[in-house]
Amino acid sequence: MELKVQPLQIKAGKFKIVLNPEDAKELGVREGDRVQLKDHSYLTAVVETGDMIPKGTVGVYQECCEKLGQVCPLAVNIVPTSRPSSVGFIKKMMDRQKLTQEEIYQIVQDIVRDNLTEIEMSAFVTTSYIHGMTTDEVEWLTRAMIDTGEKIEFDTHPIMDKHSIGGVPGNKISLLVVPIVAANGLLIPKTSSRAITGAAGTADLMEVLAPVEFTADEIKSITEKVGAVIAWGGATNIAPADDKLIRSEYPLSIDPRCQLLASIMAKKGAVGADCVVIDIPTGAGTKVPSIQEGKKLARDLIELGERLGMSVECAMTYGASPVGRTVGPAIEVREALKVLETMQGPNSLIEKSTALAGILLEMGGAAAKGHGKEQAMETLRSGKALKKLKEIIEAQGGDPKITHTDIKPGEHRAELASPADGYVIEFDNKRIVEIARIAGAPIDNGAGVWIHKKKGEIVKKGEPLITIFADKNWKLTNALKSAEKDFPLIVEGMLLERVQTFRVV
Amino acid sequence: MELKVQPLQIKAGKFKIVLNPEDAKELGVREGDRVQLKDHSYLTAVVETGDMIPKGTVGVYQECCEKLGQVCPLAVNIVPTSRPSSVGFIKKMMDRQKLTQEEIYQIVQDIVRDNLTEIEMSAFVTTSYIHGMTTDEVEWLTRAMIDTGEKIEFDTHPIMDKHSIGGVPGNKISLLVVPIVAANGLLIPKTSSRAITGAAGTADLMEVLAPVEFTADEIKSITEKVGAVIAWGGATNIAPADDKLIRSEYPLSIDPRCQLLASIMAKKGAVGADCVVIDIPTGAGTKVPSIQEGKKLARDLIELGERLGMSVECAMTYGASPVGRTVGPAIEVREALKVLETMQGPNSLIEKSTALAGILLEMGGAAAKGHGKEQAMETLRSGKALKKLKEIIEAQGGDPKITHTDIKPGEHRAELASPADGYVIEFDNKRIVEIARIAGAPIDNGAGVWIHKKKGEIVKKGEPLITIFADKNWKLTNALKSAEKDFPLIVEGMLLERVQTFRVV
Repeated sequence: MELKVQPLQIKAGKFKIVLNPEDAKELGVREGDRVQLKDHSYLTAVVETGDMIPKGTVGVYQECCEKLGQVCPLAVNIVPTSRPSSVGFIKKMMDRQKLTQEEIYQIVQDIVRDNLTEIEMSAFVTTSYIHGMTTDEVEWLTRAMIDTGEKIEFDTHPIMDKHSIGGVPGNKISLLVVPIVAANGLLIPKTSSRAITGAAGTADLMEVLAPVEFTADEIKSITEKVGAVIAWGGATNIAPADDKLIRSEYPLSIDPRCQLLASIMAKKGAVGADCVVIDIPTGAGTKVPSIQEGKKLARDLIELGERLGMSVECAMTYGASPVGRTVGPAIEVREALKVLETMQGPNSLIEKSTALAGILLEMGGAAAKGHGKEQAMETLRSGKALKKLKEIIEAQGGDPKITHTDIKPGEHRAELASPADGYVIEFDNKRIVEIARIAGAPIDNGAGVWIHKKKGEIVKKGEPLITIFADKNWKLTNALKSAEKDFPLIVEGMLLERVQTFRVV
Repeated sequence: MELKVQPLQIKAGKFKIVLNPEDAKELGVREGDRVQLKDHSYLTAVVETGDMIPKGTVGVYQECCEKLGQVCPLAVNIVPTSRPSSVGFIKKMMDRQKLTQEEIYQIVQDIVRDNLTEIEMSAFVTTSYIHGMTTDEVEWLTRAMIDTGEKIEFDTHPIMDKHSIGGVPGNKISLLVVPIVAANGLLIPKTSSRAITGAAGTADLMEVLAPVEFTADEIKSITEKVGAVIAWGGATNIAPADDKLIRSEYPLSIDPRCQLLASIMAKKGAVGADCVVIDIPTGAGTKVPSIQEGKKLARDLIELGERLGMSVECAMTYGASPVGRTVGPAIEVREALKVLETMQGPNSLIEKSTALAGILLEMGGAAAKGHGKEQAMETLRSGKALKKLKEIIEAQGGDPKITHTDIKPGEHRAELASPADGYVIEFDNKRIVEIARIAGAPIDNGAGVWIHKKKGEIVKKGEPLITIFADKNWKLTNALKSAEKDFPLIVEGMLLERVQTFRVV
């Protein structure tokens, strides 16, 4: 059917067109079906229908226009075509049938090429969440995610890497682990993420100090130059399927285990990592509530690593309380820099960073077995880690002269005072993150929460429990309101709720 | 955040808006999150992001514009808001937790109000397909589907109804069953569907004879006047959730059992049916391949009917071969009318129609137990059924003088001749439907396939197996090509494929 083209000037995020319902009937296609657009080139697009497109016309979203040529053609020939074979493979998964390596590759390729609709993507992530995948399938998924993106190959080995499962606020340890490892002569090209539901991802933190958006080639050359990089993975084309999957998982608040495994290991595999340490924070409020689950996850990661030729070690860490006392980009960086400069700072941060760095030093052969942590601590204490971080900052285009006092928290601040004398008996990580986000984190980098009292600490009535920082006053107001309405900490003896006297009318 | 409104003049099918990515970040929302638009009225919309919307502006799809007022406001205030609680209930289902009646009602209400995104809808249908629902949940789903739409209440009882599970081509029996039942003094307000993947739904057939789009009130008054109606359910607001669910199920080619049950019974419940007969075609190529599965489905339908206060009987029918010898709107109607006028026509059509009508006559007390079929046959033979159908046609605004010879098949036709002498040993229902659809059915009502030889029949080489009809010559060409490429019938002794001699180069 030959139809006049009406460019829609709107991006659909997919190759999509809109047909008048009568033309769609005539063509025998329904919403969600595929058609082929033929002009000089071919293009498969998904059908939407709508009355606002006149009969005899096809509404063409921007992606299709661009694909059709520099100037959108005046008319195209449209014929129905079948769905991608991936849709049948997803149906197979729903029916609990195992997929082959080729079928999984096809699904991942269609995801990367934006060939699947939101309905199909959602069916895939929902089914993955419900049924999971076999170990073989997870391996194939990981390989497909690596192979459908850019890869980095280093000439020198071993390549070290680190990942945290996340879910614990204030987890700024990469700012210490990466320079400690690199200062010991090992290469560590760390790609990291921005916060999705958190208050600050490692990429958000590093961005306070230097640019973080680099191509795969730049990541390679910076690492070869100074031994390390802390870059935002989202700016590269490394394992691009991951971002697309997250876009379907986020609205459903699910993180299917098979995709969690594949996503972590694909990013490590794509940068050519040989040795990987994975931080698994466990405890109330984290993604891994029990030690048992943490161990299971660790075994799965180690096995997947073996299958992919990577040596993986996992560290179960205490995740029920924030790492350090700061949550939010600027204040977290300030806290980390102060430790690097002065060794002064929260024990939880110093201990965790050196423990994980120590594992990598041992795995990479830079420290003797059993002496990694000690050596990591020495690297920190000697100032070598600070020196290395400054080299990294400079190589990434930041100012290496920066010190922790240069980093200013948001100028608007408010304190939440303890309503009673006593111990902090409950501490709600999720509420702390919510408050930091309402205050503007991670986008306003001065926003965040400074934690004065952690679980188990003693406090006097009127003493500050937390300080909220914000770059904008209205965000501070909202964050404070939220904090007062639903307190993130509970002090023993504190009144939980006041029930008003009933009034007899 | 106050943003300038840019009306997009495009329907999204949902309440959706587009934000510039920077504004979205500033607001702390991502694609798929909800925001509230505040002007004079409130409105919750789903966020898309796109560069084509300038910073400080919000792209507003047509549905939102219309909801905001007669004239789209120049600016609106936008604040993030939480997801509908239904999304959490869908997550609960994924986690194999049972839902309460209130939770199911909430999901259905959000579906009807277009409050769920395609990702969320797909997660719901995928989870329903994988986990299914308990009997309680199916009952609640059905009640919710009834209660979120229009209902018809008749003063007279019993109200009769009929449904076919579908999957067998040429199933035109409603054109006989409905008038037979009504001619015996029972009320039967039949709402039916158009073909989605088939060649002709009952609504497509009836439309050859009369208009089929009526409101619930019109359905009631026509039924009260002549005893019956054959209307398109999609034109009413009866169980509107069903159409919306189909829109997510169709692209995945799934039909979750719990939703199949609820969808059938909700439509019957909403028109106030007391007695329902359900045709379950079984056999190769149907939706119910085995007798065992058919019996299970029948038990589920009967139990659901009991819970809802409806008396349900199911008839397992032979579905491996088409009913009658015609597939496609006009030729099916011609075949059915000819039977009503002359009692001449395929046995499969007459037998099946009178058997099902007979069950209804017995259920409704219009025939003695064991004598329903005989009485239905008599109603047909006496011409009372024809007279009743003409009353229905007239009441729906069609021409009651129509006879079967007035109904013309498409003017373009082609025969597929048997390539050999022998018996028809294979007959592929799905291919017959595909060929009819390529020829233009159901939208071109003259298009279809006339079946000369069914499975088990003897044929001579060169005799016609099927005739393809089309209203448009190019569609005939495509249908013939498809039929020749992949033969829908196999005659014993027929060459299945010719392998060419290898040429040595």
